[in-house]
Amino acid sequence: MRYYKISDNTIRRLPRYLRTLEKLREQGETRISSYGLGQLLGIGSSRIRQDLSHFGTFGVQGYGYSVTALRDAISKVLGMDHKFSAVLVGCGNIGKALLCNFDFAACGINLMTGFDVSSEVVGTTHNGIEIKSMEELDCYLTENHIDLAVLCVPKEVAVSTADILTRNGIKAIWNFTNIDIIEPGSQILVENVHFSDSLLALSYYLSETIMD
Amino acid sequence: MRYYKISDNTIRRLPRYLRTLEKLREQGETRISSYGLGQLLGIGSSRIRQDLSHFGTFGVQGYGYSVTALRDAISKVLGMDHKFSAVLVGCGNIGKALLCNFDFAACGINLMTGFDVSSEVVGTTHNGIEIKSMEELDCYLTENHIDLAVLCVPKEVAVSTADILTRNGIKAIWNFTNIDIIEPGSQILVENVHFSDSLLALSYYLSETIMD
Repeated sequence: MRYYKISDNTIRRLPRYLRTLEKLREQGETRISSYGLGQLLGIGSSRIRQDLSHFGTFGVQGYGYSVTALRDAISKVLGMDHKFSAVLVGCGNIGKALLCNFDFAACGINLMTGFDVSSEVVGTTHNGIEIKSMEELDCYLTENHIDLAVLCVPKEVAVSTADILTRNGIKAIWNFTNIDIIEPGSQILVENVHFSDSLLALSYYLSETIMD
Repeated sequence: MRYYKISDNTIRRLPRYLRTLEKLREQGETRISSYGLGQLLGIGSSRIRQDLSHFGTFGVQGYGYSVTALRDAISKVLGMDHKFSAVLVGCGNIGKALLCNFDFAACGINLMTGFDVSSEVVGTTHNGIEIKSMEELDCYLTENHIDLAVLCVPKEVAVSTADILTRNGIKAIWNFTNIDIIEPGSQILVENVHFSDSLLALSYYLSETIMD
């Protein structure tokens, strides 16, 4: 396992900080204290100061953080300035939902094209993104430098599709298949999206209210 | 803000424990040590022991946890035995993806019906779930006891639809709209699903590999 300088817990709080800072900016706020940010996020201000201390000195005692400077610093830490290139593989319901509604550019991701097996979908364009035939995937990946793949294919072909991706130099997979696609110890980065995690957290809090 | 006995961080690790235990059970494993569970999850064994200590004594020193007993205990803590009833509101791409591919029952959720405005969708059935007209939503909620709503409507109608839900006794909303649907201080539980959070974490780890 690689050693990362910043803990995974901190990394996973950063997108929430980013969203909150973006909202503050839209509201015209220019500065925010760690206490204020903590109140908005339900996180203790000492944890926030500790998280943000990884990225240099933004806060000034009694004066708080500059909203835009902190937002820019966090987006840089999250690699958003790299403009990673991506393909979306599998344009069924979830793939199409991402194509039509998800703002890849806002995450610093340059979505290049989609791939699907269905002749009804191949050749169509969603949000300016063309869907190519899955048969072209292999060839496309060898001819283009693509960093990341969004994997939305059916479970049955998840592993075989992931094989094509990794064989062709894809370094990171955003995995919506609910399948373990990579052998343990692989160097490929995989971020599994498990919808159930958040539903079960909601279920917990709902059951708590019933017990009150 | 309500006081919950178990920290939110712990709650959000439990679904991951559950998934891992389920996988172990499928592999025929009957016992697992906190160290073994930690290795599988990339979490320290002391944190695991601390997390699980909230739910009674399952572990036996040098003997580990019973896989099924621990799985059952965690699923109970997560409220999965309550069989909460749910409706899905908005059957566009993301709504349809959830209807067709997401296993609500496996999360202990009893999905009753879906609602949509499109005449092409109303009356169709996906995975045994009938889609009703959005015009029936108000009436349906007053006539049926529904605990939870899955909100997948377009951004423009997110707040107004959430109003209908909460006015009619919905206590929890699983929110896919990327919009803040509830005023601060509301008693309604909202779990916001932000796809960008996991993509940005992946982007961070990808940018780390490039800097190596």
